[in-house]
Amino acid sequence: MKLTFTKMQGIGNDFIVIDGYSSPVNLDAATICRLADRHFGVGFDQLLLVEKPTVEGVDFRYRIFNADGGEVEQCGNGARCFVRFVHDKALTNQREIRVETARGVIFPKLEDNGLVTVNMGEPRFQPAEVPFVADQDELVYPLQVANQTLEISTVSMGNPHAVTLVSDVDTAPVENLGPLIEHHVRFPQRVNAGFMQVVDAHHIRLRVYERGSGETLACGTGACAAVVSGIRRGLLQSPVKVTTRGGELTIAWDGAQQPVWMTGPAETVFEGSIEI
Amino acid sequence: MKLTFTKMQGIGNDFIVIDGYSSPVNLDAATICRLADRHFGVGFDQLLLVEKPTVEGVDFRYRIFNADGGEVEQCGNGARCFVRFVHDKALTNQREIRVETARGVIFPKLEDNGLVTVNMGEPRFQPAEVPFVADQDELVYPLQVANQTLEISTVSMGNPHAVTLVSDVDTAPVENLGPLIEHHVRFPQRVNAGFMQVVDAHHIRLRVYERGSGETLACGTGACAAVVSGIRRGLLQSPVKVTTRGGELTIAWDGAQQPVWMTGPAETVFEGSIEI
Repeated sequence: MKLTFTKMQGIGNDFIVIDGYSSPVNLDAATICRLADRHFGVGFDQLLLVEKPTVEGVDFRYRIFNADGGEVEQCGNGARCFVRFVHDKALTNQREIRVETARGVIFPKLEDNGLVTVNMGEPRFQPAEVPFVADQDELVYPLQVANQTLEISTVSMGNPHAVTLVSDVDTAPVENLGPLIEHHVRFPQRVNAGFMQVVDAHHIRLRVYERGSGETLACGTGACAAVVSGIRRGLLQSPVKVTTRGGELTIAWDGAQQPVWMTGPAETVFEGSIEI
Repeated sequence: MKLTFTKMQGIGNDFIVIDGYSSPVNLDAATICRLADRHFGVGFDQLLLVEKPTVEGVDFRYRIFNADGGEVEQCGNGARCFVRFVHDKALTNQREIRVETARGVIFPKLEDNGLVTVNMGEPRFQPAEVPFVADQDELVYPLQVANQTLEISTVSMGNPHAVTLVSDVDTAPVENLGPLIEHHVRFPQRVNAGFMQVVDAHHIRLRVYERGSGETLACGTGACAAVVSGIRRGLLQSPVKVTTRGGELTIAWDGAQQPVWMTGPAETVFEGSIEI
């Protein structure tokens, strides 16, 4: 069977997007693994499958598979690519679409400038929600790592984050401290370790050592976590431009009990077809 | 401009192959770099460009570009993919074709079983030809590396190789010794470090720490170098099956002043098109 796909990327996080809306597509985990290999297959961080919705009142169902074939709940960079895809393929002409995902219905929006805005959900700060071992919610915690005391902020964006302030992300010891923070005993489910440089109240530079992956070009939830923690600490004001190695995002947050909004690019790289 | 391409691989060494034969294609180094990126482009080890020949009496011109955009002379795994490509695209129906390359005319052959055989040229053993610092050609040299004495064989297959015999490639200290051999002072142009396990006289298992790249899935010239050195030492008899992490090759060599023949697979992975 010939499978057609679109290779896309959002600030360096890369995807193949498959139209299972026009006609159904079934992919088993072994096939997804094979497609994900960057030498023997197409290569991608995640596979995005667009399908007809299974519930009333929404436009699409959108499913996300990791390179190991497992289905996952959320990917902010992928959601932006999904929105560009359904527009570019003329599967919809609505700019604000209603999408069924594994974590509920989301409402991403194609902006006039071609960027896409995605609701990333509410941040959670209670230590048990992150999860992080601490008595109560604090803006900053001391964390003992390798004979030094770091000051970290913790937040859950559906996944756990620890954010450390640095004076210069280019020289920050991301490779050394990243794995030590990730595996610190106070993070029972490990953690994504962000290193944030505040340029001004509306601009940060960010590197993230991702849980299970090491440093990546960009981490959408890491950008949200860094901006939210900076706003809480009074260092930042919404909206905040986030410069990562893979590109730029804009994060907006109106404070407690409000969702985080992420705006950023989504680009088509190439079109392809493969026998599976 | 829309560029169509075929993604191919030979034992894990991966390529995009472009038809500049049917109509000319010009690619500058910046474009090749962009195409080579595995997140922002298509991703490949080398780009193969098929062109009309510029000399009489040959069928094709075949050019090889590295991921940095620089043109290189030889790639055995690429030559096999080139042969499959010109057949699959019906640019020829000859099984043995005459090809103009940067290092002269080569005569690769599509076998009845779909594998491709390529003449890899004559091995060179004189120390100055490798280059290797030694008084005369020996089958085995002692080499001081990190408080131990390795026994290495050296050979040039157009590029320098050092081959070390190991009892088990799976447990061989490739990551530790590879860079020390590569940068050893007796190899003034550095060296590709091969680790060879002799299974029997017609079968070896091989890992190669490639000069400038680290360990790769497979190295075509490394397979030739290992087999040639094993035949010279009386450990192997032509032809020899070479098992690498990326797949299997068969290497044949009839001894001094004879070329080395490499037979192996070449597979189409997918077809694509990209705006450049």
